[in-house]
Amino acid sequence: MSAAYERLVARLKRAHILGTVAGLLGWDEQVNLPPDSADQRAEQSALLAELHHAAASDPEIGRLLAEVEKEVCHLLSDKLSEDVDEKVVWREAKKDYERVVKLPAEFVAEKARLSSAAYHGWAAAKGKSDFGAFAPFLEKHLEMAKQEAAYLGWGDRAYDYAIDKHDPGMTAAKITELFAELKAGLVPLVRAIAASPVRARTDIFKGFPVEAQREFLREVTERLGFNYRRGRIDVSLHPFCEGSGADIRMTTRFDADNPLDSLFSSIHETGHGLYEQGLPLAAQGTPLGQNAGMGVHESQSRLWENQVSRSRAFWAFFEPRFREKFPAQLAAVSSEELYLAVNEVAPTLIRVDSDEVHYNLHIILRFEIERRLFSGELAVADLPAAWNALSQELLGLTPTSDKVGVLQDVHWSGGAFGYFPSYCLGNMMAAQLWFAVRAKYPELDTDFEKGDFARLLGWLRAEIHEQGRRYEMGELVRRVTGEELTPKYLLRYLQERYAPLYLK
Amino acid sequence: MSAAYERLVARLKRAHILGTVAGLLGWDEQVNLPPDSADQRAEQSALLAELHHAAASDPEIGRLLAEVEKEVCHLLSDKLSEDVDEKVVWREAKKDYERVVKLPAEFVAEKARLSSAAYHGWAAAKGKSDFGAFAPFLEKHLEMAKQEAAYLGWGDRAYDYAIDKHDPGMTAAKITELFAELKAGLVPLVRAIAASPVRARTDIFKGFPVEAQREFLREVTERLGFNYRRGRIDVSLHPFCEGSGADIRMTTRFDADNPLDSLFSSIHETGHGLYEQGLPLAAQGTPLGQNAGMGVHESQSRLWENQVSRSRAFWAFFEPRFREKFPAQLAAVSSEELYLAVNEVAPTLIRVDSDEVHYNLHIILRFEIERRLFSGELAVADLPAAWNALSQELLGLTPTSDKVGVLQDVHWSGGAFGYFPSYCLGNMMAAQLWFAVRAKYPELDTDFEKGDFARLLGWLRAEIHEQGRRYEMGELVRRVTGEELTPKYLLRYLQERYAPLYLK
Repeated sequence: MSAAYERLVARLKRAHILGTVAGLLGWDEQVNLPPDSADQRAEQSALLAELHHAAASDPEIGRLLAEVEKEVCHLLSDKLSEDVDEKVVWREAKKDYERVVKLPAEFVAEKARLSSAAYHGWAAAKGKSDFGAFAPFLEKHLEMAKQEAAYLGWGDRAYDYAIDKHDPGMTAAKITELFAELKAGLVPLVRAIAASPVRARTDIFKGFPVEAQREFLREVTERLGFNYRRGRIDVSLHPFCEGSGADIRMTTRFDADNPLDSLFSSIHETGHGLYEQGLPLAAQGTPLGQNAGMGVHESQSRLWENQVSRSRAFWAFFEPRFREKFPAQLAAVSSEELYLAVNEVAPTLIRVDSDEVHYNLHIILRFEIERRLFSGELAVADLPAAWNALSQELLGLTPTSDKVGVLQDVHWSGGAFGYFPSYCLGNMMAAQLWFAVRAKYPELDTDFEKGDFARLLGWLRAEIHEQGRRYEMGELVRRVTGEELTPKYLLRYLQERYAPLYLK
Repeated sequence: MSAAYERLVARLKRAHILGTVAGLLGWDEQVNLPPDSADQRAEQSALLAELHHAAASDPEIGRLLAEVEKEVCHLLSDKLSEDVDEKVVWREAKKDYERVVKLPAEFVAEKARLSSAAYHGWAAAKGKSDFGAFAPFLEKHLEMAKQEAAYLGWGDRAYDYAIDKHDPGMTAAKITELFAELKAGLVPLVRAIAASPVRARTDIFKGFPVEAQREFLREVTERLGFNYRRGRIDVSLHPFCEGSGADIRMTTRFDADNPLDSLFSSIHETGHGLYEQGLPLAAQGTPLGQNAGMGVHESQSRLWENQVSRSRAFWAFFEPRFREKFPAQLAAVSSEELYLAVNEVAPTLIRVDSDEVHYNLHIILRFEIERRLFSGELAVADLPAAWNALSQELLGLTPTSDKVGVLQDVHWSGGAFGYFPSYCLGNMMAAQLWFAVRAKYPELDTDFEKGDFARLLGWLRAEIHEQGRRYEMGELVRRVTGEELTPKYLLRYLQERYAPLYLK
């Protein structure tokens, strides 16, 4: 490695470390912060954000990138050398650097101010179920999102820019195509299940002591492979996973009458945590030690949460353990009742409460709305009507109010457009990986029945985690599965899992 | 306020906020850090220390100090205006700034490296009970401490400089005088108690469930006045109190067979926490929002731990509550047995295990050693012999090994000379405050018997906490009690509390 390259890496790591400290402040705010300490935390976080921005936009990084570019330029047009470490670091670091320096500081500050005001505006509007009160914030965010894309040189492709921020290389046109195929397959399945007389019983979960829930999910997440010597799990209002490298912090929440909520949300966060723990530690702070984007991240959390942990093989091992922890509570519940409850399908207006069959329809709805908003087909004022019509079309339900309709999600209050599609892209990728790894290792079910998940994790480590940001999602899926990203495996997986339960 | 003054305050606050973030990293390290995440935390902490140092030594602070000096110069020779806010901020900020900028960066880095090596050297030497293995580190620290004092312009008054760092305005000569008087009064009391047939029973504390201990100490610390909306208590290996302003974090530890350890260490940390919570929040980040030094800090922790919480009035209120939490464990224990156990006096070789009567003798020993080391009367090689002789003279005990003698404390491995005396100065000040406030409010005992500590806390808030760093310890004691700092109140307090118990 050249001296310039080493200096570049040192600067990148410095910015990265500041980012991890800012992340820890955020984790602590959700997990530990005393109720009246929020103002002080806001000051700390604002200063760290400022220092992180200064480190990431350090002009020395720009100079070093130019020097390194000269060194790697002979590789630039060579497709075969696309994934040489130095080239990957240069390419991705340059992309990050330009995103940081091309946005005027005043624009960034204005977006932060707008997001803060819009968050409170959204919360108030949601409380009153009054979209009109939130609309002006959304108008302004939309305008700023277009301005941001223009600063970055994306011209009139503002929505593509928003998508690319979350899933590099992905476009609205590509997603439109994928979602159309997915929708065509999903709607009939949903309709068929809705017509089925089979209903999961969820009233069987009453009075599950929190301490026993905690012990059980600790055992599960540890067996899945989460390394508690380099991470921990705590309690927060909303589950999340934060951190990078050697210190990954997940959270969950407990409800004595809903043990599956904390179990499955913990497994979901474990999927995120396993990905972060699997990124190459030695490359920490460089793109080679970073995740490949939101969609790939979500593929990891969903694979563990859904494909693995809702499977019969998983429950073959864990059901006796679950019963050991809650013998009285589960005494009158049969194995089939339990397994059906784990795989409950029932439509709901609320995305975050949705089962995995309906979930993707919630996303298709949001993508459709965002796409039309950015193209100008849809005016902000007409959003509730468009939302409600799509909800009826896709879910068979019309929201009774904006609160449970267009105002349900927090994302838009932060101007986070292009974020929703990642969830669904992640679901597709998870299913596609699932079929690929099972074709390679037919013995996986036997592993799971023994409580052994090492073979699956080892494969994900080698194929996905250790690649860092080397490949964009599309390229990564091609390399690992031999096919383009496609919804057909997600549809096949949902069919194979849910048809035997509901369409007997 | 002038524009220069406002800019100065903004720079000071910036450095302060970075200090609080570094502090939070330290707290998290002791309370939450996963076992294999230490390297990553070390990188984060090193970067924050670097940024904090850069912010505190920002040349702009030097320029602004010079500007503000011109504005306040007409106040400089005016004794009456000693405590005008702007003058206090200028005076103390200048002192801090010079301490930071007069030390060469290489010297600071070398001291940090030495401290890290010396810490491990000390731990290993203590393990083998071999002072010789630690001596070279101590030699080097002593040499660097003298060098540091020289950099700061203290010439050959290196030990005074070390003391002043912890307790501004205090000197070795002054402490020598105070400790001589204290020793003269303490040794006869200790001898008399040693000859007493009265012995506290500590075997009465067995099997106190941790959860009930936690509830009890939460009630106690809340009643004393700790504001849990701006702070919290967690578990760590060694109890401590960290944070400033609106977010104060205390820690404790639990032992089912030693409930008084966690109770009294929590009350001790509560004393520190109440002081920090009482500093003026609006002045956060300036000297007016900072504590007045180690000795004053210790006076607050000791006052609550000892004078308040070992009193009959305190236990008149809390004994029934304590028994409610542990009815079976305390069934056969009389009130007098419990109160005597709370006030156990028994000599020990170990400072941190010492009762409050012997405690000050441990400090006098260390001060005497440090004083002689700095004056050159004592060579490092002769330290164990000197320690053991002083131990026999003061405590009536000769250490059986260096491990329980000269190697017992961690402080010197960090080069923290001049730190030990603060503990004893704090004990003196606590007792002096105790007599002052009881003279002013004879009804304090009646308050305590009702579980009401607001009158005492209100007085401490107004007289001590709200003053920030306005006065040095000596001046503060004079203003609050009308007298110079003196050991006579500590001696009187110990006599009044322990003679009725042991010298009946």
